[in-house]
Amino acid sequence: MNTITSKHSALLEYFCGSKHNQEELAELTERLQCAPTKVERFRSGQFVAHQGDSIDSLVLLTKGVVRIEVVSPTGDRLYTNEHEAPFPLIASLLYSSEQRFANDIIAVKDCEIEYYDREIIEKLLEECPTFRRGFLTFSSNLIYGLSQQLQIFSIRKIKGKLAYFILQKMEPSGYFSLDMSVTSLAKYFGVTRSALSRVISELASDGAIYYTRGFGEVLDIKKLRDSI
Amino acid sequence: MNTITSKHSALLEYFCGSKHNQEELAELTERLQCAPTKVERFRSGQFVAHQGDSIDSLVLLTKGVVRIEVVSPTGDRLYTNEHEAPFPLIASLLYSSEQRFANDIIAVKDCEIEYYDREIIEKLLEECPTFRRGFLTFSSNLIYGLSQQLQIFSIRKIKGKLAYFILQKMEPSGYFSLDMSVTSLAKYFGVTRSALSRVISELASDGAIYYTRGFGEVLDIKKLRDSI
Repeated sequence: MNTITSKHSALLEYFCGSKHNQEELAELTERLQCAPTKVERFRSGQFVAHQGDSIDSLVLLTKGVVRIEVVSPTGDRLYTNEHEAPFPLIASLLYSSEQRFANDIIAVKDCEIEYYDREIIEKLLEECPTFRRGFLTFSSNLIYGLSQQLQIFSIRKIKGKLAYFILQKMEPSGYFSLDMSVTSLAKYFGVTRSALSRVISELASDGAIYYTRGFGEVLDIKKLRDSI
Repeated sequence: MNTITSKHSALLEYFCGSKHNQEELAELTERLQCAPTKVERFRSGQFVAHQGDSIDSLVLLTKGVVRIEVVSPTGDRLYTNEHEAPFPLIASLLYSSEQRFANDIIAVKDCEIEYYDREIIEKLLEECPTFRRGFLTFSSNLIYGLSQQLQIFSIRKIKGKLAYFILQKMEPSGYFSLDMSVTSLAKYFGVTRSALSRVISELASDGAIYYTRGFGEVLDIKKLRDSI
């Protein structure tokens, strides 16, 4: 199934990024023999991995889109995020004591996924400083992002939670996308769907936001901040 | 202020752990010149760092105990965890795009803290595979832990949140410590103190747990699981 056509590995391209040119990447790919060990394709709707599956490779999404879902202790499916290729589905967790997928991963468009053995990653981390830095930055940003996410739950009122969530998602233009359905967001916050819908309407009637079907615009950022 | 008396660096000791003997560590410390750049002492109650402070070193607690507090968007102080020496207060975040402390760090006993420049870390990551693996495992476990913490918030009922939290904290003996006051835990969950106290009493009168002043014992694990 291995049909890599470009001369360099997608793995190096992702973690070394713009700091290397294409020729250097191709040379590194060859010298460090970092071709993927396996390439698999998944059709839209198929599971790429189940929460709890054991991990033995770095898993890189090279084509398509996946949805990452957390299965809660109550068995609820919490939609968290969609990721477009290229994106590492497992990178840092390769080194955790508990080597298991922390989420379900489901293809939402046809996907191509590359698997890289731990030995390849070890070699790259040892021999390529740019890869090492890219890999560590990826892990660190994940830690920072998760820490930020945890803060939202300390806000007691649903309206405050939502306002803070929107401020995190807002682009400089003022537009924002919730990145999940109201039902999923309600599950994520641990509140009822109707309670969440009510506060969305409240923020809209306050004039703080305009919102429709997952997308919206912040109309009055001060009002939104004051709702936290 | 530099008063390291042992022959090897506390940094190597922490991350290389039992995989190296003391002589090897001393040799590595010397060869890689990984003495701390700075050593500071803090008295009980003093701030070691404020949330948002910029990061330019790996920060290692070598003596004492610190409390790590998250300041929420509403300005509430959320007690999260206490850590005893030795413990890295900043390690992975040295590589994040946003190089800032994600928490307040406060000495709860007199502390000694070592700071290691980024260059020392870079050199160790490059030249010492055991350190590299230890460092990556530390980061990965942090990611896994934060992901697990996020799941608790998807549980809608306070009683379920508390039951799940206790199950996470429970030791094989059945004993558990909440690691924070009821007031702090209520802030962490984003609920009122009285609501949380009520469900603690409920779990106790159900016969699921025995609880007093931060410590407790799981009496009936099935009942506790069924409360989620």
